[in-house]
Amino acid sequence: MTAPEAEAPPATRGGDWPDSAFLRQLAAVIRAEDSYGSWEGKSDAELLADFILTAEERRAMPIISDPDPDVMWRLEKFYDAIGLMLERETGCMAGQMSKFNHEGWGRVVLIAGRLVVLSKHLRDVHRFGFETFQKLAEAGETLAADAAATVARFPEAAQA
Amino acid sequence: MTAPEAEAPPATRGGDWPDSAFLRQLAAVIRAEDSYGSWEGKSDAELLADFILTAEERRAMPIISDPDPDVMWRLEKFYDAIGLMLERETGCMAGQMSKFNHEGWGRVVLIAGRLVVLSKHLRDVHRFGFETFQKLAEAGETLAADAAATVARFPEAAQA
Repeated sequence: MTAPEAEAPPATRGGDWPDSAFLRQLAAVIRAEDSYGSWEGKSDAELLADFILTAEERRAMPIISDPDPDVMWRLEKFYDAIGLMLERETGCMAGQMSKFNHEGWGRVVLIAGRLVVLSKHLRDVHRFGFETFQKLAEAGETLAADAAATVARFPEAAQA
Repeated sequence: MTAPEAEAPPATRGGDWPDSAFLRQLAAVIRAEDSYGSWEGKSDAELLADFILTAEERRAMPIISDPDPDVMWRLEKFYDAIGLMLERETGCMAGQMSKFNHEGWGRVVLIAGRLVVLSKHLRDVHRFGFETFQKLAEAGETLAADAAATVARFPEAAQA
């Protein structure tokens, strides 16, 4: 539609990089898998680039498709980072469980002790992604705050 | 080792059929999947025969094997039946989630509201089975009673 030179340069994909404890935690979770140090030269923004899914990209995705293992991996890292944020804030270690069907519908939970600190029903999981780094940061921080509030509400169950 | 005629007749495999609310519930869970009524003529003991794994059968199983989908199906029905027993006793509906690796190690949980009413770490899940119907009944009843005790301990979280 527009001339190629009108395309936004790749550096601005995902927008500005906000100062966010969640984004730092998520990048650290991903760096922890870098056994061979091949990502050492990469910035956090580069490591999290695949979490960005613009409106155009979303529209271009096929409606019918099995969730990609890479998407499931990113989803897992996203909730791992929330679990670690929670642990830093409350001292409660939370483990993740999820259940998805082949159409990408399902549920992910974080469990600390006997407490489900976070429960999220998801659909269209093969389109898991965020328009901007700002939205990714907000999503993670909101979920981590909700999980901490749930721990505060049921502290005995979280420690059981 | 012994002559073939010394072999126990198939009817006694699993031992006596005890009077057990759990076994009735488990059989009902399985009958619920019988869309075409092809199991109508079968007894509960026949429907649950595959939950029996004798010591000899266990020894004969290969140590290394991926969990069979049929085993995973039975495991799911087993915990579904526990969830239904719990619901009848406490009024709390509990849903199941599980996570297993290819070696058959993992965890299954039952969740009611915000509460993990049952959490079980399992290994060797490809050998999931019970020596006798009596042991199957006891396992189910013990887990259902534990789950009900957990609900009684954290009633608000179970209803959250």
